[in-house]
Amino acid sequence: MDTPPKLRLFVDAALSPGAGLALPADQAHYLLTVMRAGAGTPVAVFNGRDGEWLAALEPVGRKGACLHLRAPLRPQEAEPDLWLLFAPIKRARIDFIAEKATELGVSVLQPVFTRHTVMSRVNDERLRAIAVEAAEQCERLSVPMVRPAQALDTLLAAWPNERRLILLDEGGGGRPVAEALTALPPGPAALLVGPEGGFAPSEQTALRALPFAVPVGLGPRILRADTAALAALACYQALCGDGALPPRLSSLS
Amino acid sequence: MDTPPKLRLFVDAALSPGAGLALPADQAHYLLTVMRAGAGTPVAVFNGRDGEWLAALEPVGRKGACLHLRAPLRPQEAEPDLWLLFAPIKRARIDFIAEKATELGVSVLQPVFTRHTVMSRVNDERLRAIAVEAAEQCERLSVPMVRPAQALDTLLAAWPNERRLILLDEGGGGRPVAEALTALPPGPAALLVGPEGGFAPSEQTALRALPFAVPVGLGPRILRADTAALAALACYQALCGDGALPPRLSSLS
Repeated sequence: MDTPPKLRLFVDAALSPGAGLALPADQAHYLLTVMRAGAGTPVAVFNGRDGEWLAALEPVGRKGACLHLRAPLRPQEAEPDLWLLFAPIKRARIDFIAEKATELGVSVLQPVFTRHTVMSRVNDERLRAIAVEAAEQCERLSVPMVRPAQALDTLLAAWPNERRLILLDEGGGGRPVAEALTALPPGPAALLVGPEGGFAPSEQTALRALPFAVPVGLGPRILRADTAALAALACYQALCGDGALPPRLSSLS
Repeated sequence: MDTPPKLRLFVDAALSPGAGLALPADQAHYLLTVMRAGAGTPVAVFNGRDGEWLAALEPVGRKGACLHLRAPLRPQEAEPDLWLLFAPIKRARIDFIAEKATELGVSVLQPVFTRHTVMSRVNDERLRAIAVEAAEQCERLSVPMVRPAQALDTLLAAWPNERRLILLDEGGGGRPVAEALTALPPGPAALLVGPEGGFAPSEQTALRALPFAVPVGLGPRILRADTAALAALACYQALCGDGALPPRLSSLS
């Protein structure tokens, strides 16, 4: 079996037959220097709108590169409409959330400030870079949108009623996750995971009273925020999302 | 509400009313220096056999400490009999597997060498230390056993037939995870996740042919080994494990 080096890039530009894409310096550096790819090397590209395309690499000048689109590989597909709302936590763990949530197919990464949130800033650019890399690696056709951090109250005040808010509720009283997700009506959803200190009691009461809230419990062990986010995402995809689809075979191998 | 500092330790010694436990130097250092706990500070202790007990701290000499057992807090409970077999991967990701798998309630952590496994050594002590810390944090009453790394072939040659081997199969052809787990008969189980390069084709064929193998698919995205392990564990606990139990309220708060 002929297995060319597997290179896969997310790009911003529109993808159409015969198009040539000048690559930004960091992607040119990655292909030419890090991966030592030469003229004609096949590269898969996607932009979140136009499906996945096969392209050929052309070095330009001393350090530049462009890609020539050759043929479509896969059409753009609908993906689960699932947001992840999470309180910013320590850097290693927030990086982890961005990577794993991308692999597990969230459409939006939304940092939220809750009453017990310790961190006051979020590096959106960093989260986006991690999401792009994870999307390239896991054969996704899209990159989750990283939204600017917001106060949870503000976000909930303008919440679209039809979007279910799955509340990861370590305070007890949530319905077991498999039972709650099996009963969830189809439609847009969001998962909300609190900060390491949990929600404030008044906040928890208010959250549970929201008409679109679905409080779920994740079992007897008290999970870290990042573990809880991931475990709930995995269960959502298995029970309500695209978990029944077969793995995408690698586009270039 | 009176909330004492929440300290929780795993110990080796037997736990019984009135017992006094001399702590090893690292645990004494943790309580006295890191947590600045003084004489009489309440500490929860568990050993994986005798349930959880309330103890009081007593400093001894310049740097030592012992604990006096006061009262039982929770009886020992049966926990899911679930092994995780994983090929050793990069250090940060293997640390992550040990932490998250402990939070998600595995009973055994078993590193396995497969044909495409790159790493040839596993630091058992390090994995065990991570598992102990995660167990202390997540209110588990046990610490998963860290078994010495073994060749997958050797392990499978002596496999107990009644233990289902849930195969995380990125090659396609696995049954969707929710469907496969819902149909799983009750009993002991193990999850097997391959190395980053996947299983060798011959290995995959042999694995699928095992009478106790249950190949499952985790959806269209190609997950990293650590993500796959975690996602499958979360689904197992939700659908076959103890996911329907309520969160354990913190023993000392």
